[in-house]
Amino acid sequence: MTAQRRGLGTNQEAVRRHNLGTMLRHVHGAGQVSRAQLTALMGLNRSTIADLVLELVSLGVVEQTVPTAARSGAGRPSAGVRLAEVGPYVIAVDLGVDRAVVARVALGGEVVERATAPIPSGGGEAWQVGSTVAGLIRRVVEGAPAAAPLLGVGISVPGLVRRSDGLVRLAPNLEWQDVSFGSIVLAALGVDVPVQLANDADLGALAEHRRGAGVGIDDLIYISGNVGVGAGVITGGVRLEGAGGYAGEVGHLPFAPEGRLCHCGNVGCWETEVGAHAIAEAIGCPESEVVTLGDVLDAYAGPPSALRATGTALGHGLAAIVNAFNPRLVVLGGYLSSLYALVRREVDDALAERALPAPLESVTLALPGLGSDSVLLGAAEIALEPLFADPVAALGTALVDVGGRLAG
Amino acid sequence: MTAQRRGLGTNQEAVRRHNLGTMLRHVHGAGQVSRAQLTALMGLNRSTIADLVLELVSLGVVEQTVPTAARSGAGRPSAGVRLAEVGPYVIAVDLGVDRAVVARVALGGEVVERATAPIPSGGGEAWQVGSTVAGLIRRVVEGAPAAAPLLGVGISVPGLVRRSDGLVRLAPNLEWQDVSFGSIVLAALGVDVPVQLANDADLGALAEHRRGAGVGIDDLIYISGNVGVGAGVITGGVRLEGAGGYAGEVGHLPFAPEGRLCHCGNVGCWETEVGAHAIAEAIGCPESEVVTLGDVLDAYAGPPSALRATGTALGHGLAAIVNAFNPRLVVLGGYLSSLYALVRREVDDALAERALPAPLESVTLALPGLGSDSVLLGAAEIALEPLFADPVAALGTALVDVGGRLAG
Repeated sequence: MTAQRRGLGTNQEAVRRHNLGTMLRHVHGAGQVSRAQLTALMGLNRSTIADLVLELVSLGVVEQTVPTAARSGAGRPSAGVRLAEVGPYVIAVDLGVDRAVVARVALGGEVVERATAPIPSGGGEAWQVGSTVAGLIRRVVEGAPAAAPLLGVGISVPGLVRRSDGLVRLAPNLEWQDVSFGSIVLAALGVDVPVQLANDADLGALAEHRRGAGVGIDDLIYISGNVGVGAGVITGGVRLEGAGGYAGEVGHLPFAPEGRLCHCGNVGCWETEVGAHAIAEAIGCPESEVVTLGDVLDAYAGPPSALRATGTALGHGLAAIVNAFNPRLVVLGGYLSSLYALVRREVDDALAERALPAPLESVTLALPGLGSDSVLLGAAEIALEPLFADPVAALGTALVDVGGRLAG
Repeated sequence: MTAQRRGLGTNQEAVRRHNLGTMLRHVHGAGQVSRAQLTALMGLNRSTIADLVLELVSLGVVEQTVPTAARSGAGRPSAGVRLAEVGPYVIAVDLGVDRAVVARVALGGEVVERATAPIPSGGGEAWQVGSTVAGLIRRVVEGAPAAAPLLGVGISVPGLVRRSDGLVRLAPNLEWQDVSFGSIVLAALGVDVPVQLANDADLGALAEHRRGAGVGIDDLIYISGNVGVGAGVITGGVRLEGAGGYAGEVGHLPFAPEGRLCHCGNVGCWETEVGAHAIAEAIGCPESEVVTLGDVLDAYAGPPSALRATGTALGHGLAAIVNAFNPRLVVLGGYLSSLYALVRREVDDALAERALPAPLESVTLALPGLGSDSVLLGAAEIALEPLFADPVAALGTALVDVGGRLAG
């Protein structure tokens, strides 16, 4: 039902597409929603809701669950809407320091297929990593129904990503500087789909806010422990981006002026105390296992005392973050969730010791609600975003038969 | 022209009041605006703009400058709108550590009348300070035209203010904890007007964003140097508040673990290196003059070397702020603007040494565009805010003949 056929003006059509996207966002969030709920959530009348549902059905993204003709004596049961069986999907890429995880994620946030491959220690050349990622993408799309449209690719990067164009300005643990990794992946794939890149902690925050421990909490911070340490900040329900998209680099807050040299060139950044290398040193973990520190910590059977100072440093740094941002919730992601399980008391005590009473009283520390998938699911969310902004446009440019195209 | 008389629905009336407020905000910002500019700025048609102007005229807040009947051969000159000669005003209070400044500020942001009084060192009892402030308010409203409506009072506090109700949770240099200062001032005044309280740095940021060095810049930080050090953060054009309204307490970022004891109970907070007491110690300024450190620094004729370490500490702390928030502009307020003039090179070098290259490349340090009035004018802005949200409601509850009432 295009604007021309309905004779709608440009503005009305824009409002309609916005409403379609909003409805789809609700179905994406809940999996299944009744029309009555949609009416209440969206503040639109029943006939407008019914029209929007019909259009989403015709776009192939939702299905109706109860025929609208069904009636009972006590009033009409509200028809339901659920995600289509063969609906649109995205590719989510979580680029770690030692491995890439790639997933096919359906609308609704379910990981349908997943593939992982190691990447060379220190990142390796960007084109080689791009080629590895492209190979993983081929694997996860192979089994996708030919009719299911691919909307785009979302990529998480452990580093600073320029908001305007997704350029990777700096990914220290991959040893990358100014790399247009999105174009590299597209070149290796040989197809043209929308690609979005973002910082790993920002994506962890996004996913935890939408689907994890932070649902309904508008001031939250996700701290990523991924060799280095960074923060994704959501404030007033909105991502704190800063002027260029780089906000949240809390790993480089000053911490120990007489401490270790940081890769950024300074001495004693917080990351030099709570980063993976420092923790590995504290527990005598070999350098080769630093990149899998979360697993090492999960299996740790050494003396708890070896980690006490690290726990205290984590809590003191969190106090600085609480003072600066006044979050309601701080989610400890990556290996920091494993660390927190081991030294919870030290972290809590050190936080309470250093944070100002007013911001301290309303903050909670939490483990990720999405486990180790926060960042991956955040990458899926940014790839889905154009669908919620304008489903008609996003589906119009989506690719079908992706398996066939990529195999060919 | 009320909703009833025009037969408008509640929604339409709300939209109309919103538009009236938006128009008034434009006139407040620019002082004088043409109808053609208003048409362009607000995206409304000429007849709607003309209606809104007429309603603002009938509310007594603006005047028209060119009769709409005036015509010339080459098209009709656009009539102008300017602020009314006898328009609404607010009271702004800048509560410092040693003195209170109170101003009568007209719509448009002009300080019409100003009065200052010392307050006891260490703040004194809150009721005594409230009584001092009420006395200053009486002085500044004395000369106000009887017909001019008082909209409300905005108060800046050097401390943590709870967003929900304006409670002063902690004002360390006033030695206040959990003080409802707004009610205290009203009690001393004996009249009921709306009172808004906020943190000094947040108000500095607001005023510099709207009318000072940060006009048009949506990611800016104002650092207040007011015995202690705090930040007001605007990100994406919106104030970063945090869960309770306490965000921006950067004075308590960890900085020198082996350093001085901070009044917050910790050791080596950034404030212990760049706060007024530390600077006074560095230049041998007597403790009694710490509260007027800006003036002391403006007159400083001692060796520049005495301040070099302070300049470096300021730059290093600013680097942490730049890494955490990625601002486009950092405004150095209070005595920090005097300090910056003396040790600019040390500050700039230390910032460049410690900030990550990506956020560093787009940040600028600046002095306040509003001089020493940023915080005072920010207090006026929050008192004006209800007028821009709904001029009809705000003017409906405003007080007239305030001088007479307060004298009586």
